Amino acid sequence: MKARVHVTLKTGVLDPQGKAIQHALSQLDFDGVEGVRTGKVFELELTDTDQTHARERVEAMCQQLLANTVIENYDIEIG
Amino acid sequence: MKARVHVTLKTGVLDPQGKAIQHALSQLDFDGVEGVRTGKVFELELTDTDQTHARERVEAMCQQLLANTVIENYDIEIG
Repeated sequence: MKARVHVTLKTGVLDPQGKAIQHALSQLDFDGVEGVRTGKVFELELTDTDQTHARERVEAMCQQLLANTVIENYDIEIG
Repeated sequence: MKARVHVTLKTGVLDPQGKAIQHALSQLDFDGVEGVRTGKVFELELTDTDQTHARERVEAMCQQLLANTVIENYDIEIG
């Protein structure tokens, strides 16, 4: 079973990498880019067969390792 | 208009970060994790109003900056 986790910075948390990308895009003459926010994606290959159990495990993985819940949000897609 | 870009490593490209996370998860007693692949997410805030035009621009941004198309794939979600 596949699980995909998106980890993004919480609103209000500064994103210097996003700012740098936004600046670089304007240097490349891409106008009309009002904001860029960066984040991470984790694609997990799990041996689980039950989606509910898999979601609970991935939730625990996010809490313990994949996301810094002080400054990051995460969302989980199973299957 | 919002656009979301997922950038992930092409199949066959080594993902040392993913391997490290997989190892860390097993250290935390998460068994049954057969593989971890990492990637990036870019959330773009665009002034575009036409989705087709926006998709073409984001495609060009990926080709020129957001993705290293030699080793990475990208997919674009608009709206």
